Amino acid sequence: MKPIILINFKTYESGAGHKALEIAKIADRIAKEKNVNIILAVQAADIRMIADVVSIPVYAQHVDPIEPGSHTGWTLAEDIKEAGAEGTLINHSEHRLEIFQIEKAIDIVKEEGMKTVACTPDAEVAEAISVFEPDIIAVEPPELIAGNVSVSQARPELITQAIEMVRKANKNIPVLVGAGVKTKEDVSKALELGASGVLLASGVMKSDDPEKEILELIEGLDV
Amino acid sequence: MKPIILINFKTYESGAGHKALEIAKIADRIAKEKNVNIILAVQAADIRMIADVVSIPVYAQHVDPIEPGSHTGWTLAEDIKEAGAEGTLINHSEHRLEIFQIEKAIDIVKEEGMKTVACTPDAEVAEAISVFEPDIIAVEPPELIAGNVSVSQARPELITQAIEMVRKANKNIPVLVGAGVKTKEDVSKALELGASGVLLASGVMKSDDPEKEILELIEGLDV
Amino acid sequence: MKPIILINFKTYESGAGHKALEIAKIADRIAKEKNVNIILAVQAADIRMIADVVSIPVYAQHVDPIEPGSHTGWTLAEDIKEAGAEGTLINHSEHRLEIFQIEKAIDIVKEEGMKTVACTPDAEVAEAISVFEPDIIAVEPPELIAGNVSVSQARPELITQAIEMVRKANKNIPVLVGAGVKTKEDVSKALELGASGVLLASGVMKSDDPEKEILELIEGLDV
Amino acid sequence: MKPIILINFKTYESGAGHKALEIAKIADRIAKEKNVNIILAVQAADIRMIADVVSIPVYAQHVDPIEPGSHTGWTLAEDIKEAGAEGTLINHSEHRLEIFQIEKAIDIVKEEGMKTVACTPDAEVAEAISVFEPDIIAVEPPELIAGNVSVSQARPELITQAIEMVRKANKNIPVLVGAGVKTKEDVSKALELGASGVLLASGVMKSDDPEKEILELIEGLDV
Repeated sequence: MKPIILINFKTYESGAGHKALEIAKIADRIAKEKNVNIILAVQAADIRMIADVVSIPVYAQHVDPIEPGSHTGWTLAEDIKEAGAEGTLINHSEHRLEIFQIEKAIDIVKEEGMKTVACTPDAEVAEAISVFEPDIIAVEPPELIAGNVSVSQARPELITQAIEMVRKANKNIPVLVGAGVKTKEDVSKALELGASGVLLASGVMKSDDPEKEILELIEGLDV
Repeated sequence: MKPIILINFKTYESGAGHKALEIAKIADRIAKEKNVNIILAVQAADIRMIADVVSIPVYAQHVDPIEPGSHTGWTLAEDIKEAGAEGTLINHSEHRLEIFQIEKAIDIVKEEGMKTVACTPDAEVAEAISVFEPDIIAVEPPELIAGNVSVSQARPELITQAIEMVRKANKNIPVLVGAGVKTKEDVSKALELGASGVLLASGVMKSDDPEKEILELIEGLDV
Repeated sequence: MKPIILINFKTYESGAGHKALEIAKIADRIAKEKNVNIILAVQAADIRMIADVVSIPVYAQHVDPIEPGSHTGWTLAEDIKEAGAEGTLINHSEHRLEIFQIEKAIDIVKEEGMKTVACTPDAEVAEAISVFEPDIIAVEPPELIAGNVSVSQARPELITQAIEMVRKANKNIPVLVGAGVKTKEDVSKALELGASGVLLASGVMKSDDPEKEILELIEGLDV
Repeated sequence: MKPIILINFKTYESGAGHKALEIAKIADRIAKEKNVNIILAVQAADIRMIADVVSIPVYAQHVDPIEPGSHTGWTLAEDIKEAGAEGTLINHSEHRLEIFQIEKAIDIVKEEGMKTVACTPDAEVAEAISVFEPDIIAVEPPELIAGNVSVSQARPELITQAIEMVRKANKNIPVLVGAGVKTKEDVSKALELGASGVLLASGVMKSDDPEKEILELIEGLDV
């Protein structure tokens, strides 16, 4: 598998509506030109618009552990799938689920044929969550999210541990690392430590020049 | 104001993706032909697709009390607005908010120039919520939602009380009634009791013939 | 009604177990000596121990909107009542409830013959919550809680507004003010602005000398 | 370890205050007379009163993942410990936690030297939760809780699977089974399947004769 750069648009101003579409197009173009693997996690209301235009994978940022039915205002897996989502984040630190809901959400999303990126704050939760066999596990220490120090610089041991613990429980789940990722060194260090890629948000979305920032990150892929 | 028929698509199978679009088109056509006021509350990922096609108002089913920022997977007012939502339900019985969040969500949605339909289970909460001055208040006793008896038949006094209590607190907020609404009698009874319209979901969305059901409801408008 | 000083023990180290009991005894002694009205809001597991020893009112810090039944680990009004609680805080900013749950919790607690102190962050929520007729409303702007500036100094207009809005909706509900209360001036200013007392926590619980602090606050009662 | 019978008092009317104390005394007497291992999980406000009187272990029904501080109305591990709790349920199906909170709550409770009984609805969550090394894991399929069919009769394979999955992840965690346990056959079947005991609530707490019911359950221990 080629290393992944997963860009979480969150609900940043730059990550909503036509502004989101602009950044999505830039990422799409770079991914093709450089032949790299970029995934975009966008707001539910923007999935269809963005997925219609880009050819790289568009993911949702969240899905609720629900089947079709009476669930006003919640996010249904089969609806975001039809809108064009190829996968979804689950249990992001800004949108945590109960443990049983994580199991259920992963099951439902998989049945729809979509990919699941289960987020976790530390190595132990990564091991626990690996029992539910998400397609990818993303480790993001909450205290570093949106900060200026990247997890690969500040807590490299966390990445190594998380990968080891996931391996111990279940060999085949790739691990992304996130929190504070901004430079090519952050990316190359993460890969060097055994990660399959990075998950980032503010590094790109709050950048004055998202294109330049994405190009910078991609340089880190040449390990 | 013309009486309102607000159809909540929920996350019913019939209310997702292209099936949702079909029902939306039917409602749109009937609204024009019969010159009636129909509002559709659809899933976030379907707002843009449906709002692009119909000319009746499309609402969201929920909005989170957040400003742009780090809120992965939550629903941002300005994003659904750009997608085409003209308003949103708030505090539906299947998606309740804390009291302070209701105040904040209503403020944020209004700043975006969208309409707010605040839902409430009873007359007292209707009065309390009217303090926050939503554009519309919808009273739905949870025990009757998705049931076979409509609130206008089963608990007409609740509608009268709710309207009185809202009037007491703030004269100008229209009250919709919901829960179990299915027949023209349900609609006409609601209007007769002083309501400004009805809010319904399963009556249309789980009907074998949504078109016929919408036409039936509309007959109740001729009071 | 004599002005109220309501001390919230929270889950401070000084507010748990035998340390809580010590502060409770001090408050009890001072209340008797000075003939003032002090209420203590303590942790559920400490209610019985403290209520058995002091004669001033002991309140719970929270109650859940539940009837007897299958609710493992939640707080039942009739259980804390039997333990000795004469009242309870509801909807504290650190323990918010949905609007419908506030209505239900207040009803349940009143049926048990206990007093309810409904907490609110601002004047509008105070007005909304007054619809449910709690015995007391406590206004605490969250941004000032546990801070060094008191609400009576920093935002006196909030107190005046809150009292006005409660009066507008329902004449007879006393209003306490909280957040940052520490000095006799904070107390006297609050009373001067029309409040029926103060609600505080860190001012006493994190003080090196809680007795001295309580005596200081009481001086503020002599308006 | 002797097989465990853990009785969850929930917030049943019979499980609050002096009624709770009566059942606790009965359980305590039987435990001594029959030399069996009975644990009582009681409401926070009753822990101290019951722990002062019985010599069998008294547990809390829940603890929040908090350290001492500003957490009004939440349950602090060190406070219930001082009140006499020797352990606590965590993540009961009626009181679920986010996965990260489960990790944190278990860590905090263990630091206090108390026992943790982590509850789980199924075998997969049991395996996941075993990563956090609670002292005991209790498997309770929610659909059978408070029902008339016991898990050992209705879904024996769930028990076997859960035990296997916990063993796979971590050899030394005893597994209790719950949901619908009422008869000696339920108990003996559970032990036969490899469980270390049972967790039950309504079987005893809603019985007309709790003493007779506890004696019945104990007969099941003689495998």
